[in-house]
Amino acid sequence: MTKKIRAAIIGYGNIGKYTLEALNAAEDFEIAGIVRRSTQNNPAELAAYKVVDSIDKLDNVDVAILCSPTRAIKETALAILAKGINTVDSFDIHSQIVDLKHSLDKMAKAHNSTAIISAGWDPGSDSIVRTLMLAMAPKGITYTNFGPGMSMGHSVAAKAITGVKDALSMTIPLGTGVHRRLVYIELENGADFATVEKTLKADAYFASDETHVKQVPSIDALKDMGHGVHLTHKGVSGETQNQLFEYSMRINNPALTAQFLVSSARASMKQASGAYTVIEVAPINFLHGQTDELIAHLV
Amino acid sequence: MTKKIRAAIIGYGNIGKYTLEALNAAEDFEIAGIVRRSTQNNPAELAAYKVVDSIDKLDNVDVAILCSPTRAIKETALAILAKGINTVDSFDIHSQIVDLKHSLDKMAKAHNSTAIISAGWDPGSDSIVRTLMLAMAPKGITYTNFGPGMSMGHSVAAKAITGVKDALSMTIPLGTGVHRRLVYIELENGADFATVEKTLKADAYFASDETHVKQVPSIDALKDMGHGVHLTHKGVSGETQNQLFEYSMRINNPALTAQFLVSSARASMKQASGAYTVIEVAPINFLHGQTDELIAHLV
Repeated sequence: MTKKIRAAIIGYGNIGKYTLEALNAAEDFEIAGIVRRSTQNNPAELAAYKVVDSIDKLDNVDVAILCSPTRAIKETALAILAKGINTVDSFDIHSQIVDLKHSLDKMAKAHNSTAIISAGWDPGSDSIVRTLMLAMAPKGITYTNFGPGMSMGHSVAAKAITGVKDALSMTIPLGTGVHRRLVYIELENGADFATVEKTLKADAYFASDETHVKQVPSIDALKDMGHGVHLTHKGVSGETQNQLFEYSMRINNPALTAQFLVSSARASMKQASGAYTVIEVAPINFLHGQTDELIAHLV
Repeated sequence: MTKKIRAAIIGYGNIGKYTLEALNAAEDFEIAGIVRRSTQNNPAELAAYKVVDSIDKLDNVDVAILCSPTRAIKETALAILAKGINTVDSFDIHSQIVDLKHSLDKMAKAHNSTAIISAGWDPGSDSIVRTLMLAMAPKGITYTNFGPGMSMGHSVAAKAITGVKDALSMTIPLGTGVHRRLVYIELENGADFATVEKTLKADAYFASDETHVKQVPSIDALKDMGHGVHLTHKGVSGETQNQLFEYSMRINNPALTAQFLVSSARASMKQASGAYTVIEVAPINFLHGQTDELIAHLV
């Protein structure tokens, strides 16, 4: 039997929980432990695992799966890569990915470790589809349509507005990359809905999209982690116009992110040291199995 | 300016013609020449190019794009790899891909060249989609539905039957990977349709599919190189069931094959020596452009 990959889960929110499930379902992994800020009041499902407040308290970790918020990724990844341990993350600020890659690449190469970054679904698996579509039809336009599904970033932005007790922002695809936002708001006692609605529509997160705000008695009753995407590319192969490509999925959002993080953690073990985005990784490296068997089955 | 990749086109049938167009549309390539068995009676569009009967008569070829029939690929590729020139092909016999890879890998490594094999659309770009779907939901079933479109292999098999002057076999997707075949037949003078129909339905190419045979006055009037695919995967991410993924395209068949061959020819310049299937190549390598710009644009 080949040695299993020892993974640590860093952070135990939604993504962390689903990552634990994905690691348990993957026969080539074993769980070194979970790193949490507080190791008190652990949920029941963690009873069987080592829960610690520092990765230094775990043995022989091969790869750390960062399930912490995007804003904490860079600092956490740099510290872990410096220990010679691989990292994977689902960093999702598209405009900062190149910078993150360069920072982690330098550290990883200096300490013989590997990072795979922005390995959720967008950025992540969708990025691979966009790349493939351009390889098939280099000229043309690609549209990425998200939803219907909850946007975490927009929900947090709505929740930050004064007078808002809880909020949920749905992303509704209108086609050709244009989206409507339906924002459900649970008000604080005494807050004025019209004021909240006006503030929200002026917020940078919402100002450029068609936004509808609705007051509801309970946000919790509306929560559903289902999400989706519909990617289209119409383009030119050589000199042949009108080549049409479509990709779509309907998925549980944190479950897909966690699974792709685990597949990327596996891939990190097969890459030379350095930092990579998912389009820089050979797709077969995401899978468990013997190369010839995977080729015979998939190619 | 960076040096352009010098490509040779080997064989000038349908795929060869579209490969010429795809090379002309790619700013990072230049055409070293076209290798044909006979260099007489060249079509008008070849007037501007060197047309020769051996790749040895072309200068400084970096990569040979094999547009010859599948059964000629192995021998042709081995001979060219032995000269230290990269090859790409669209070899399409799924069950022989692993063997082809091992043969070419050995030769390529011995002569510091690189081969990317089975780089059409199925095997080819579809193989990358199947791999990605498994990385996102490792358990579950993937169905590949082809068509509607002409099957070259089945058309050739039908044409080989005694009494058949010309034939065209359409692949019609019935869902869940099941296909109907509609075979259009132009008979030789005096041939008996009932006999031809019976022979065809018993042929190994057709015996296991629902097959309908129709007699028509002219096959040429029916030819359309449009084709398509619809890939579905329903699977499990971690422990979360019912994750749904779909990929589909409607394309000009030889134009897509030729474009993906050219994208693979580019990728061959970025790989270490050896032979690769397309799922063993990082997707970014198929594209022309600066790494950071591609990442910023696509990830």
